[in-house]
Amino acid sequence: MSATRMQLLSPRNVRLLSRGRNELFAGSSGVGYGPRVCSLTSPPLSSSSPGRALSSLSATRRGLPKEKMSENGVSSRTKVLTIDTMNPTVKKVEYAVRGPIVQRALELERELNEGMKKPFVEVIKANIGDAHAMGQQPITFFRQVLALCSYPELLNDSTFPEDAKSRARRILHSCGGNSMGSYSASQGIESVRQDVARYIERRDGGVPCNPNDIYLTTGASDGIVTMLKLLVCGEGETRTGVMISIPQYPLYSAALAELGAVQVNYYLNEEKCWSMDLSELQRSLDEARRHCNPRALCVINPGNPTGQVQSRQCIEDVIRFAARESLFLMADEVYQDNVYAEGCQFHSFKKVLFEMGPEYSDTVELASFHSTSKCYMGECGFRGGYMEIINMDEEVKAQLTKLVSVRLCPPVPGQALMDLVVNPPQSGEPSYDKFIKERTATLSVLAEKAKLTEQVLNTVKGISCNPVQGAMYSFPRITIPEKAVKEARDKGQQPDMFYCMKLLEETGICLVPGSGFGQRDGTYHFRMTILPSTDKLKILLNKVKEFHQKFTEQYS
Amino acid sequence: MSATRMQLLSPRNVRLLSRGRNELFAGSSGVGYGPRVCSLTSPPLSSSSPGRALSSLSATRRGLPKEKMSENGVSSRTKVLTIDTMNPTVKKVEYAVRGPIVQRALELERELNEGMKKPFVEVIKANIGDAHAMGQQPITFFRQVLALCSYPELLNDSTFPEDAKSRARRILHSCGGNSMGSYSASQGIESVRQDVARYIERRDGGVPCNPNDIYLTTGASDGIVTMLKLLVCGEGETRTGVMISIPQYPLYSAALAELGAVQVNYYLNEEKCWSMDLSELQRSLDEARRHCNPRALCVINPGNPTGQVQSRQCIEDVIRFAARESLFLMADEVYQDNVYAEGCQFHSFKKVLFEMGPEYSDTVELASFHSTSKCYMGECGFRGGYMEIINMDEEVKAQLTKLVSVRLCPPVPGQALMDLVVNPPQSGEPSYDKFIKERTATLSVLAEKAKLTEQVLNTVKGISCNPVQGAMYSFPRITIPEKAVKEARDKGQQPDMFYCMKLLEETGICLVPGSGFGQRDGTYHFRMTILPSTDKLKILLNKVKEFHQKFTEQYS
Repeated sequence: MSATRMQLLSPRNVRLLSRGRNELFAGSSGVGYGPRVCSLTSPPLSSSSPGRALSSLSATRRGLPKEKMSENGVSSRTKVLTIDTMNPTVKKVEYAVRGPIVQRALELERELNEGMKKPFVEVIKANIGDAHAMGQQPITFFRQVLALCSYPELLNDSTFPEDAKSRARRILHSCGGNSMGSYSASQGIESVRQDVARYIERRDGGVPCNPNDIYLTTGASDGIVTMLKLLVCGEGETRTGVMISIPQYPLYSAALAELGAVQVNYYLNEEKCWSMDLSELQRSLDEARRHCNPRALCVINPGNPTGQVQSRQCIEDVIRFAARESLFLMADEVYQDNVYAEGCQFHSFKKVLFEMGPEYSDTVELASFHSTSKCYMGECGFRGGYMEIINMDEEVKAQLTKLVSVRLCPPVPGQALMDLVVNPPQSGEPSYDKFIKERTATLSVLAEKAKLTEQVLNTVKGISCNPVQGAMYSFPRITIPEKAVKEARDKGQQPDMFYCMKLLEETGICLVPGSGFGQRDGTYHFRMTILPSTDKLKILLNKVKEFHQKFTEQYS
Repeated sequence: MSATRMQLLSPRNVRLLSRGRNELFAGSSGVGYGPRVCSLTSPPLSSSSPGRALSSLSATRRGLPKEKMSENGVSSRTKVLTIDTMNPTVKKVEYAVRGPIVQRALELERELNEGMKKPFVEVIKANIGDAHAMGQQPITFFRQVLALCSYPELLNDSTFPEDAKSRARRILHSCGGNSMGSYSASQGIESVRQDVARYIERRDGGVPCNPNDIYLTTGASDGIVTMLKLLVCGEGETRTGVMISIPQYPLYSAALAELGAVQVNYYLNEEKCWSMDLSELQRSLDEARRHCNPRALCVINPGNPTGQVQSRQCIEDVIRFAARESLFLMADEVYQDNVYAEGCQFHSFKKVLFEMGPEYSDTVELASFHSTSKCYMGECGFRGGYMEIINMDEEVKAQLTKLVSVRLCPPVPGQALMDLVVNPPQSGEPSYDKFIKERTATLSVLAEKAKLTEQVLNTVKGISCNPVQGAMYSFPRITIPEKAVKEARDKGQQPDMFYCMKLLEETGICLVPGSGFGQRDGTYHFRMTILPSTDKLKILLNKVKEFHQKFTEQYS
């Protein structure tokens, strides 16, 4: 930083920078921000506000400030892009899963590595559904095929099983020039879409699936945002509203904020294991209709962050509700293999829709989403996913296809991986036994950890926790004493953020406050993943228990 | 399709569907649309227009139509999402590179495969910069490392070179749980960003680069759209305008349409080998200021679709212009290794900016974009890329980091590949010679084909073609006889679309009409890639020559 710059850094600027860092930052990069704050290369912020700058400058065309001379005569231009002149919808976006608490966790990790003394020896991150990062091993077969596709010379290597090779050959054959380096069709590789369609047919007991209704995506997030993008229109009272569950996965609120759509909250019933409540849906819709045009209903099943698995009856009711109220259904079903609780079963919206007969299956518009990132494979980094769209207007579908073509195609390795997920080794193939063994092991460990989490947390006075029926998360309710609520408010923090931040500083455990997902006013929660290894999970749960007891004592 | 549905298909509906297919469709999937048109599962379009539906229904709350009974008593709901009720900005999006001509090319390919007789034996696609699809081979080292990262068991395989292994170990070490299946930091893997920064420093003769200014992206497209998203604000006369070259790469117009920003055209000077003209920039800007707020200037160098390489002087002039006029600079530099013409050299905007001294390098806001998809590697399918942002306001940067966190992370295999591109084998390492040999071979073949394309096309009366100094495209100007222009207009087609469609039908050659990129009124062009193998390129060029002569005769 030049001396000139340094002199211009006023306390206000430093405060603004801190704000940027602590309140707005949501990335998780280890070095992302800290050093940058200390090595400013931009002009001081006081001159980057057009309002301020204008007062000291002769305004030019259209009121755009241009240059001014700083004290030492060096020209210092006002920034074109400032917090005041940037896209206002982007500013409204929030994403708690990678928010300030994660940033602090990374700082603590760095400090530990640098030898700083802490009341803990390691940071345990249970903030994000990132299975491999928590030690889950990839499925061998999947990775073998990906290696073969990446470097086809390996097709001559006799150590690779034949079924992996034939799968790789089939994928490569579907790629331009037999290379994963070619763009695919924007909708996704044709043979992969065919495999997805067959998978859905098997999953749904034979309900037909047309490969032309499948769009491969860059993770499920991409598909969800694309669908929401199609749905948004109107202004003011006719602006599109989208119903989302509260608690929700914050991708939904972030996308709606960015698109300028109206977020319409419906609350899940915590008392009934986070089930959907028809009367609550109706209340939410009726209220929303007074100020916007609700057009879509989003459901996450199995639930994120709440870990519930909706019953078949509930899904049928929701479909009937959507049909009656003319709502486009969006079913986020990325945890479809993550069902642990006895008596629970995954029912796809598509299957239930078709079982309800043509009155529904011919008319209700549905988009459902799946991903390579969750279930037993947990391959988040490959950004694979698909969506199936049902009963979409043909002209809209043409627009959708056009829209996705602008970004050319989803990553081809992610498409290949999606193909393997929907078309894994079959009985009789050389890799079958190993595949089943690996899949079963991962899912049964997850089921154990789901049970363990519920059990331990429910032994703590002031924490109550629904069963983790599915997905990868527990979302327990926590009692926060009045004194702590007050202290948090005084600090300008949400009480559960205050709680989680304190937990992190004292124990090294990184959870996400419930306020990042939404919750009923006056209630507090946190989301924790069940992904740490069983040993670490036990440590984590005991530390949470101790912390909660201590915290409660301290503030009562 | 049910009989009921079939009966409801009126000629109007069929026409609408055709419109969807021929004018709106822009995907490139082989099976994408054709079969679907014949297997409608949605209600007829005449009932999906709310206006029409309303007239026959008792309007419900907020005027939303609900259900009606069709003739046989089956309930048939009006669609929630129709062409009339979808996001209007999405409808405005166009993307010629995967437009109707490509769709037709795929149909022709299918027809040929089915044994249908055509006046050609194969379809030659020169519509998209998709090198591997046209037979270019991947760099062995890159693919070895990707295979090692995908299936780390291979680290024990002695047939892989040590430098590939050490590179793979370093990448894996930077991944959570040592797996590419983990999410990375949203800004990208830290070690990759460090390697990118060192690459930029080497490329730019030592101009410093901070890894915190690097954001890894899902191809360059992702970075460009993200930057544009930050810049858009205001309404009416204060709406953000973005200056783009004409001809342009249609990602820009598509993104601006989707974001509702104002596209501000400046024309490249075809007479001076598609150079940028300062007086034209000024004209464009001054005109735009009458109706919007131009805030950014986009430059593609080397040029797409026009293949020029801007001179250092030109870049300096452009930077001075941007500084004077308070414009945020966006430099699309994805073809930075694709420079063929003698006397031409790639100059990065960053380097020139810093050579201009602190008056500029401390103030001008610049984002530059790179990708794994072009240059000598041509790895489009992996969707790797990065952007470097310079002089961005710190608060805006925090917002950018937050925004990218919502989508979690760019695909990790693409990040790994980007790492290899910026940190390829070094002299003395086992893979170095092979890497240099492969890279040189690819680039010199491209240089030959650039020359060949220019030479052959310029022998055709009625075609004139600037030298292909860089990138992967030629954008020749074609003379279209008045009679052909009239026939095209009568058909509601752009004359160069008419020309290219005819070329495709008669020769099997797939090019993109100039109208998809923008051109001066009354001029016509096409874009062709120089990517087909030399043999095929010769065939292609001769066929274009013959076709043009015949076409000219026919219509004069």
